[in-house]
Amino acid sequence: MKTFASDNNAGVHPQIMAALDECNKEHVVGYGDDIYTQQAIAAFKNFFNKQVEVFFVYGGTGANVLAVSSACRSYESVICAASAHINVDECGAPEKFSGAKLVDIATENGKLTPAMIKPYLHGFEFEHHSQPKLISISQPTELGTVYTLDELKALRELADSYNMLIHVDGARIANAAVALGCSFKEMTLGCGIDILSFGGNKNGLMFGEALLFFTKDISKNFKYIRKQAMQLHSKMRFISAQFNAYLQTGLWHKNATHSNKMARILVDRIKGIPGIKITQPVETNAVFVTLPKEMISKIQQETFFYDWNEYIGEVRWMTAFDTTEQDIDNFITILKKYLK
Amino acid sequence: MKTFASDNNAGVHPQIMAALDECNKEHVVGYGDDIYTQQAIAAFKNFFNKQVEVFFVYGGTGANVLAVSSACRSYESVICAASAHINVDECGAPEKFSGAKLVDIATENGKLTPAMIKPYLHGFEFEHHSQPKLISISQPTELGTVYTLDELKALRELADSYNMLIHVDGARIANAAVALGCSFKEMTLGCGIDILSFGGNKNGLMFGEALLFFTKDISKNFKYIRKQAMQLHSKMRFISAQFNAYLQTGLWHKNATHSNKMARILVDRIKGIPGIKITQPVETNAVFVTLPKEMISKIQQETFFYDWNEYIGEVRWMTAFDTTEQDIDNFITILKKYLK
Amino acid sequence: MKTFASDNNAGVHPQIMAALDECNKEHVVGYGDDIYTQQAIAAFKNFFNKQVEVFFVYGGTGANVLAVSSACRSYESVICAASAHINVDECGAPEKFSGAKLVDIATENGKLTPAMIKPYLHGFEFEHHSQPKLISISQPTELGTVYTLDELKALRELADSYNMLIHVDGARIANAAVALGCSFKEMTLGCGIDILSFGGNKNGLMFGEALLFFTKDISKNFKYIRKQAMQLHSKMRFISAQFNAYLQTGLWHKNATHSNKMARILVDRIKGIPGIKITQPVETNAVFVTLPKEMISKIQQETFFYDWNEYIGEVRWMTAFDTTEQDIDNFITILKKYLK
Amino acid sequence: MKTFASDNNAGVHPQIMAALDECNKEHVVGYGDDIYTQQAIAAFKNFFNKQVEVFFVYGGTGANVLAVSSACRSYESVICAASAHINVDECGAPEKFSGAKLVDIATENGKLTPAMIKPYLHGFEFEHHSQPKLISISQPTELGTVYTLDELKALRELADSYNMLIHVDGARIANAAVALGCSFKEMTLGCGIDILSFGGNKNGLMFGEALLFFTKDISKNFKYIRKQAMQLHSKMRFISAQFNAYLQTGLWHKNATHSNKMARILVDRIKGIPGIKITQPVETNAVFVTLPKEMISKIQQETFFYDWNEYIGEVRWMTAFDTTEQDIDNFITILKKYLK
Repeated sequence: MKTFASDNNAGVHPQIMAALDECNKEHVVGYGDDIYTQQAIAAFKNFFNKQVEVFFVYGGTGANVLAVSSACRSYESVICAASAHINVDECGAPEKFSGAKLVDIATENGKLTPAMIKPYLHGFEFEHHSQPKLISISQPTELGTVYTLDELKALRELADSYNMLIHVDGARIANAAVALGCSFKEMTLGCGIDILSFGGNKNGLMFGEALLFFTKDISKNFKYIRKQAMQLHSKMRFISAQFNAYLQTGLWHKNATHSNKMARILVDRIKGIPGIKITQPVETNAVFVTLPKEMISKIQQETFFYDWNEYIGEVRWMTAFDTTEQDIDNFITILKKYLK
Repeated sequence: MKTFASDNNAGVHPQIMAALDECNKEHVVGYGDDIYTQQAIAAFKNFFNKQVEVFFVYGGTGANVLAVSSACRSYESVICAASAHINVDECGAPEKFSGAKLVDIATENGKLTPAMIKPYLHGFEFEHHSQPKLISISQPTELGTVYTLDELKALRELADSYNMLIHVDGARIANAAVALGCSFKEMTLGCGIDILSFGGNKNGLMFGEALLFFTKDISKNFKYIRKQAMQLHSKMRFISAQFNAYLQTGLWHKNATHSNKMARILVDRIKGIPGIKITQPVETNAVFVTLPKEMISKIQQETFFYDWNEYIGEVRWMTAFDTTEQDIDNFITILKKYLK
Repeated sequence: MKTFASDNNAGVHPQIMAALDECNKEHVVGYGDDIYTQQAIAAFKNFFNKQVEVFFVYGGTGANVLAVSSACRSYESVICAASAHINVDECGAPEKFSGAKLVDIATENGKLTPAMIKPYLHGFEFEHHSQPKLISISQPTELGTVYTLDELKALRELADSYNMLIHVDGARIANAAVALGCSFKEMTLGCGIDILSFGGNKNGLMFGEALLFFTKDISKNFKYIRKQAMQLHSKMRFISAQFNAYLQTGLWHKNATHSNKMARILVDRIKGIPGIKITQPVETNAVFVTLPKEMISKIQQETFFYDWNEYIGEVRWMTAFDTTEQDIDNFITILKKYLK
Repeated sequence: MKTFASDNNAGVHPQIMAALDECNKEHVVGYGDDIYTQQAIAAFKNFFNKQVEVFFVYGGTGANVLAVSSACRSYESVICAASAHINVDECGAPEKFSGAKLVDIATENGKLTPAMIKPYLHGFEFEHHSQPKLISISQPTELGTVYTLDELKALRELADSYNMLIHVDGARIANAAVALGCSFKEMTLGCGIDILSFGGNKNGLMFGEALLFFTKDISKNFKYIRKQAMQLHSKMRFISAQFNAYLQTGLWHKNATHSNKMARILVDRIKGIPGIKITQPVETNAVFVTLPKEMISKIQQETFFYDWNEYIGEVRWMTAFDTTEQDIDNFITILKKYLK
């Protein structure tokens, strides 16, 4: 049975499996000097622009950490939301590998605003303070919310005033693009983003993540950083072929549209069930709710999902590219059994 | 056309593709808490013993670096051959992530002996010196040679005298096992090895590597180290299922037997071609030769392979699980065209 | 003229200069294997207990960072106040060298309480989260406030519940001891502190800081960590001799008593000057006040001191071991010139 | 009694003590923004040129490690002699802090030549290899030998061909300058050196070391690196004042001339004592000799000195700025007692 625990609990989309099969012939040179990688990079350039620099790494944590390492020297700092994946879900990998300091800011909904960031932008040129260099945001956020294009542009304006860079953790970037109804390009390049972790594992891929640099020079020595960070895959074609299929066929859009839609249906179906309170705007494929605390573990025993905030009984439900209405029906049945 | 550039230029074995397909159904919990990972770990325990601790990471560099990080604190040092992958092919990843010092020793054939290591084992308790803690060897070596069981046991004896640990970089461990005609267990546990990077990518897998700890306590906090090192895959089943199939079906043995045999055939076929001199004993699937320097780039333009030592005109040829006798015929034809 | 900018703007106390002179004869072995270092360690053991492990490093940042590095592995985290020196005044040195994550908590007065810390103590055993390991507090805090013995014991109780360690940044530990009217031992060992950065530079020493470990095993490999952290002085006697004189003669108490007293006098003298508002309890030798924003830079041009919070016009004034009542008179005269 | 163990076993020269006393008045701003530091920097600029960037750190290991950190990114490498202090006497500090790889080369006399280095200069642009960036030499070497100006210029020529930088570990730079009979400028700037660790502790100072950058841009962000590396002293004047006196009064020259001369006298005096063989040219203040192995520990019990190579019974004797002919007489008497 499928659960609502996480979109990374889903498997690999059949079109991706087919792409893996298809590229599995003959010998090709390792480490990215192959035709499949050329095609995938061309696909990205087609979606963004010719100047974008594209690199593949093993996963999301790797992409985020290398974004930080490329943008910052160890004496610089990264401004992020307290809820950011880099702040709470990477076991300190950004600090360990880059040496840079994370300055995290509490938010209501996972989104940073210039007003929230500004009080932390001081101490420039003062050697005792880590120098603010990078604003890292998640799009969508870990709470499923989405920055509007205007909100992104406001961050860019702030960053410009302080000579800072902006990184987007796009582990679920497709879900955000679908939610905003815009292209990848509009929501990144068009808003002045410098670096993008472009994920696909949560939307049907098997492994691998793309790291995109829109701004000249940041990626100049990236190939060495990637290798030293243990993120260079030898049989690179098996990452590239996935991204190529994902982008070229529109699979990214189809899958994200579906999972966003399933979240909306889930929200509609839980209305009226007593004891459930939705705590965040449902803008992508995540639904955050509070439940009566004593019921949580009982429900989890029937169908697993993650606690989000044990203090207030908040949990997270996520839909995936392969969630069906029948899965939702089954889930609602379980919920109703415990919440009357 | 298939080349003799590297065994990682080959694709993925069909049985591995089938295993990936087969595990691709329904949702399973991410990060290794799934039935496929349990099965793969059980398979490893079956090959070694019940006490072995098994962890999956993304690739060979990750496995080696995390072996160093688990065994050593930053003020300790690693003794290795100058030709070791950790010393020359990982862009300084071991030093960067672990902080430990690599002490490399020149060898004739990639193999270390106690006599070669001993002069470097001093300064214990002297705070100015990195403390020798780990001997890291490659089996087979990067030069295709294989340590005998007696040679391994001699290193163990040395390590015991100095309270040191031994790590084996087993990127091609199957080729060594086949060459020695012994089990994985005999050549590792049986010889007192503490940590093993167990690779499969060069023998038909797509991605992922196993890190095995035979000695209690070294792996105690490994799960955190793996996550912080960006080596924890979310959709873990797609690594585990590969290793499960690889071990359970004997694929490791079949593929390594084949590639070793192809190397022997290649050696037989180049005999008598003028200008080729074999420089290392051919014990696994690598063939090192010197060629007339002026011919190397010409031949490479027709069929790519790597330079090994430009100063003496040494190159490396590798066979793979999918090398055919026809591939060898084609290669010999090219060689004979340039070397008369 | 003496300012109220910082107690580290003061020079070296004549008794310390005398101690330096006195130890400057003949040759002694470097790196701490000398009679002066033995004497200083004995003096510390006399003040604390026989089990305390004492190491000398170059300065306060070094002491704090090495406390973190000794207590934590890179995948662990440090809970500290947002105002902590390790969080804002060490340019990210703790993260860079230890790899550990700093989790900072906003406070009113620089002091942490169990209730403030508890919400951050979760995710134990969860590999995605940095594991909480160390609570680091400053005594006195960077805001000049002092933890009572009961407050320290409450933190110990919390730490015990979670198997955590406690570090005290004691850059001005003598000022806190004088304020509490207790011995160094009562306020550290007596309250279950594990590690203490014992400073003296702000109270009349020239250079060097002591790092004290009260809990077995934490310091086991410290000598290597110190050397690798570039904190081992060759001519160690010139650090040791200072601490020996500082402790043996009661200089620490005399100087701290004086600077605390001068801060009280300063507070008394500014009462009634319009536009000055004291913002923190004055418990040691720091006085935090808000001033009319437009006046701050004008006053600073006559007598330098540091801005603390530009947003609210808060500045910091510090007294030192050599501050005189005449210095205060002069300062008050300047203040009154601008604040009428 | 004075020994021949190390020049850092000596105390502080009286003129340095006087300089410390003299600057010990009033308050001055911390961290280097003071008149004494300005004077010391001016003195260095006077010795070298106006463009030199001068920073003070705590000690020699700190200076060397920060030279590496300034010159290299973590994926780059440092070429050095196997005997280099950074390679064997800093407990892995360069690797830990900079992340860069050390590539060490065995030498006869501690000196590198272009011919020795060249075979290691390959793999440029190849992401699997740490990129060679810095040549680090010691002047004089740890074996007491001195590079001639021509030898230095030859290294510069090599470095230019590969776009590399050169660092000099000048822990005993004054002894080398005296040996060469040239100015500091001629032997550094004049030979194309980029970075110089300028030491003084082994020649009469108490603590502190200067790091000099001759080449634009390398030091651009150095102030942050120094702070993050725990090498920024608060009461900076007490380092600066020492260097100011050391340079301005010619003390550096007087002391180094004396210790070099004492080494020559020692060499003359041991001639004819049976069982002593000098193993390195005596060009500065170090004398390396082999002794009958069974006698070494016996002599060390009467007058301590360090073993250098236990395998061949080699030991090191060093003279200092305060070594007297009487000290040599006493030492010779002891030697003769055991070596007849």
